[in-house]
Amino acid sequence: MKEAEIYEILSKYEIPHPKYRVFKLSQDLNFDIFPCVLKIHSNKISHKSDVGGVITDIKNNRSLNAAKKRIITSLKKHGIALDENDEFIVEEQLSGLEMFIGGINDKIFEKVLLFGKGGTLIEIEKDICYIDTYADDEEIIKSVNTTKISKIFPRFRGKEYDLNHLLEVIKKFQKMFENEEILEFDINPLLYTDRGLVAVDARIKKGSVRNKEFIPKKHSVFENKKVAIIGATDKKEKVGYAIAKNALKSKAKIYFVNPKLKKLFSKKVYTLDTLPQVDTAVIAIPSVYVIESVKKLAKKGCKNFIIISAGFKESGNTSAELELKELAKEHNINIIGPNCLGIYNDTLKLNLTFAKSRIYSGSIGLVSQSGAVLTALLDKASHYKTGFSHIISMGNMADFNFAHAVNELNRQKNCKTISIYAEGLQFGKEFLKAIRNLQKPVLLFKSGKSKEAKKAAFSHTGNIAGNYEMIISLSKSAGAVIKDSIESLIYAPQFQNVKEVIIVTNAGGPGAILTDLVSGKKHLATLDSSTLSALNHVLPSTWSHNNPIDIIGDATSKRYNDTLKIIHDKADLIYVIVTPQFMTDSEEIAKILIKYEKAVPIFLGKRSFIKACKILNKSRKLYFTSLEEASKIL
Amino acid sequence: MKEAEIYEILSKYEIPHPKYRVFKLSQDLNFDIFPCVLKIHSNKISHKSDVGGVITDIKNNRSLNAAKKRIITSLKKHGIALDENDEFIVEEQLSGLEMFIGGINDKIFEKVLLFGKGGTLIEIEKDICYIDTYADDEEIIKSVNTTKISKIFPRFRGKEYDLNHLLEVIKKFQKMFENEEILEFDINPLLYTDRGLVAVDARIKKGSVRNKEFIPKKHSVFENKKVAIIGATDKKEKVGYAIAKNALKSKAKIYFVNPKLKKLFSKKVYTLDTLPQVDTAVIAIPSVYVIESVKKLAKKGCKNFIIISAGFKESGNTSAELELKELAKEHNINIIGPNCLGIYNDTLKLNLTFAKSRIYSGSIGLVSQSGAVLTALLDKASHYKTGFSHIISMGNMADFNFAHAVNELNRQKNCKTISIYAEGLQFGKEFLKAIRNLQKPVLLFKSGKSKEAKKAAFSHTGNIAGNYEMIISLSKSAGAVIKDSIESLIYAPQFQNVKEVIIVTNAGGPGAILTDLVSGKKHLATLDSSTLSALNHVLPSTWSHNNPIDIIGDATSKRYNDTLKIIHDKADLIYVIVTPQFMTDSEEIAKILIKYEKAVPIFLGKRSFIKACKILNKSRKLYFTSLEEASKIL
Repeated sequence: MKEAEIYEILSKYEIPHPKYRVFKLSQDLNFDIFPCVLKIHSNKISHKSDVGGVITDIKNNRSLNAAKKRIITSLKKHGIALDENDEFIVEEQLSGLEMFIGGINDKIFEKVLLFGKGGTLIEIEKDICYIDTYADDEEIIKSVNTTKISKIFPRFRGKEYDLNHLLEVIKKFQKMFENEEILEFDINPLLYTDRGLVAVDARIKKGSVRNKEFIPKKHSVFENKKVAIIGATDKKEKVGYAIAKNALKSKAKIYFVNPKLKKLFSKKVYTLDTLPQVDTAVIAIPSVYVIESVKKLAKKGCKNFIIISAGFKESGNTSAELELKELAKEHNINIIGPNCLGIYNDTLKLNLTFAKSRIYSGSIGLVSQSGAVLTALLDKASHYKTGFSHIISMGNMADFNFAHAVNELNRQKNCKTISIYAEGLQFGKEFLKAIRNLQKPVLLFKSGKSKEAKKAAFSHTGNIAGNYEMIISLSKSAGAVIKDSIESLIYAPQFQNVKEVIIVTNAGGPGAILTDLVSGKKHLATLDSSTLSALNHVLPSTWSHNNPIDIIGDATSKRYNDTLKIIHDKADLIYVIVTPQFMTDSEEIAKILIKYEKAVPIFLGKRSFIKACKILNKSRKLYFTSLEEASKIL
Repeated sequence: MKEAEIYEILSKYEIPHPKYRVFKLSQDLNFDIFPCVLKIHSNKISHKSDVGGVITDIKNNRSLNAAKKRIITSLKKHGIALDENDEFIVEEQLSGLEMFIGGINDKIFEKVLLFGKGGTLIEIEKDICYIDTYADDEEIIKSVNTTKISKIFPRFRGKEYDLNHLLEVIKKFQKMFENEEILEFDINPLLYTDRGLVAVDARIKKGSVRNKEFIPKKHSVFENKKVAIIGATDKKEKVGYAIAKNALKSKAKIYFVNPKLKKLFSKKVYTLDTLPQVDTAVIAIPSVYVIESVKKLAKKGCKNFIIISAGFKESGNTSAELELKELAKEHNINIIGPNCLGIYNDTLKLNLTFAKSRIYSGSIGLVSQSGAVLTALLDKASHYKTGFSHIISMGNMADFNFAHAVNELNRQKNCKTISIYAEGLQFGKEFLKAIRNLQKPVLLFKSGKSKEAKKAAFSHTGNIAGNYEMIISLSKSAGAVIKDSIESLIYAPQFQNVKEVIIVTNAGGPGAILTDLVSGKKHLATLDSSTLSALNHVLPSTWSHNNPIDIIGDATSKRYNDTLKIIHDKADLIYVIVTPQFMTDSEEIAKILIKYEKAVPIFLGKRSFIKACKILNKSRKLYFTSLEEASKIL
């Protein structure tokens, strides 16, 4: 597109651009703002500078007309002959701080804006953030503030820079990008001049993409009063056996389906035809029979399908998954999987997975794309006795996807935190919308950061991992808490809203290390004078008189107790570091720590603390043996 | 300093600067390179631009003389009257890519260069690296390559940029900074023009700093044939008891010293006067008696002093430490501490610490500034049966410092890896020199990254934590491996030289996560066609056919064994992920993994793997239960 056309689009959205005039080839040039820039204005030439089609720094009208001659000569040299359709454009030449704004059409998130530092070094500096076209003011500011260039606001080197002005301009670009048929665009630089932001060098590529249709779910996945296990079996090495066994312990009514079997766990076994109406079906049969079963059951009024069976997209069989997707749409049903581990519904104590671990009651809603990551987390959780309200193993996501899962868990009252392990995403805009609407924290771990991992993830799920930075940046701005280890998805969800932290330690070094790990994430509480003087009464004079509260190496359980009594209400979370010093009575300390709800013990060692850790574990008290690990709950 | 003076210094070191001419106030101006810049050249004015003392973009001599008049008028307006001593300087105006080079005088590292991206946004972009004035070519390049701006080499946007040319210029600055009496300087921009790098806007502050004297050590700290424990006691609650007890088990000759005691552990107890000559003394008596004891023993020929006693700098008592420092210099002795935990010497099985943990034989030389971090690590190490060749608890470092420790451990043949936990540093240049000279890997963890942690560290050791980024950047370029958790200081030193990594897994998701963690640090080995076809024979057809080698969820110990047999020689390290799947015979897998030296098992779970982990632990096989933790050995 030619400059003037682009400027017209920008004008429509009141986006400032340089003043300009377009002249026919034959016209004499004249302009009233200097310095100015003269460019050939023609669709013939894509890289104007390369053929001498741009002259800058023109100081008066005489030079302007001289510049025109020079451009014509230069173009001729490059074999470009001009005709009546060709024009010249004169623009005011502006100076200021170089920013960048652009728009792309992403496979996952559709239209997304990029904002950051502009200029010629943009590719190597990469000081860029992502902004969803539906992001509101707060979300935009959150994104912008992740860039280094945002540090110029509100003042840099004696000049004022107005963040609200940038916000208004970004919102105009959101509107333009959503309303116009634009495939992609970039403005580099978006110049912060004395009169505010001006879109100086603009490139727009017209076009449109057809996006996939997102179908919201009408029924809850967790309405599981009557559950059929299709493929229940007495063969212990089969998943159909494990699911049947796990399911039996629940409050729901369970039906087993297997045409070759009469009885299982002393219950009657049905065929698909004799089966009474159910609301939920778990399907664990060879993949070739899956579609047929879903059809039959859907006709009978079954609403929820959990397809355990593998042999779909991950084995190259994509057409069957498309068929499942169509069935879900047609019958208005939920299809989870295929190739998944199952679901867990704590309200009914209903375990429809084939995981071996015991699942404790709790408040975490866990959503995992990988079955193996899920089993590993459940195994760890059962050791630490961390509990769950809901679990959804997503599998290949033929129908039911992350946006559905987040919306679903948002409605479930006993779910207090949503924890997501994701490899790839679909329907990014709906996912962001779901996160934005949440009344509870959502924790996200996303794999596939490196090129190599993307390849590995693709080969095992058939899903495209997507642009890691974009997914993380957009999800974070929308409100997700980004986690950097899978374990931190199941730690202490009650600490997600922590603001102030106190560290109590019997050693300075580990206190300083933990301070490094906490600061930047959360605020270290300042101890007020009454707290200080109360501590002075119970601590030796050499204590740190500050947070971290170093209660000195000879601290016994009594000193820990005295300290915690004083400070327990002064912060939202209290890390209590115990190192194996000479006088450390770790078992007694463990017994003390159980009493304090906000205390998170860190027993920094191993051999000396085996008994102490057992005491904590018995009381379902979360604890750590590494500073770094402990910091991950924040 | 005035421009011309600075340009003269630069010229002396053949550092390119713009062509210029200086004119007396009364002289007519003329110059032969355009565009050019005119500046007032006077010591009266520090911020020339602010008072209209600089005019750029001058295109001919007529404009040049007009510019002079405009400057004089503008200065008058700002109340600056010129006289005969004032001059004008005309410089060629250059354009190019803006880089930055500067020099500072740091408390720890003395003269250090900073290099990076230049321009007006330098403070917010912070694309800067540190370069020691003694760094050689390789080290300089290593530092430079940590900056984003280095990505322009060898070619960016169609232009050539020569890294060797930059190297030569940096070396000239090293020379200039070392030879001249310069306190600090900065060149912004150091412009990469068509004719190469040119120092365009230079500021130099003259002056010099007197640096502290570093005294190299003549005797080894680990000559410990005859050891006296000053303050050995039968009171179990005292450290003098613990040290005496730990020391007894060694091959060294141990003498106990305590004027109030006759016998201890059925050995004779001496006084300082009756004590025979020893080479090493461990001092665990009240701080007021320490200096006197050191003097007495030094006169008797004792060479190594390990001062356990606290009550020095950490309690505000700095003068006593200065005295210890002087004693060390005067008598040519080693003084470790005060306020330390002691040392361990594996050759003599000599444990001169009061740590409770059993210390296993091994090849790690561990140096820790914090006693508590050391006890925590020893406690973990004793659980994992990780072994040490030497341990030095540094304490307050009145005399013996990190540079001494690194030099010492470099000479010790049974020490294969040096692991350092540091809070603050002294004698930075000597520390870097020691690292540069090493023939073995040195691992470094440094606390005090955040402002808050620096404060905490200072309050507990009295040592200044220093500029974290500078310490890390310089140590890394000099050859140290920077670790981000204290635990990773004692993991698997044998894997420090790993180049190629293979991942074997029974689940795709965890394989992808570990791939993220490994890539960027090490290279994932490519499987050659013969390996691929060998694997095809033993693995199910759905295996990943790539590294990570996904051997599929139903993998049993046999499949792990078959795979490892084929690939064990194809990489330096093989991560073996085991997730708790339906068929996973984890104890059998553990028994298999013990056989493979390069295999590092990751049992991703907890409850299901308790027995498997016990099997590994019994065989002193390093293993992990978290992907993230496992990646830290790299």
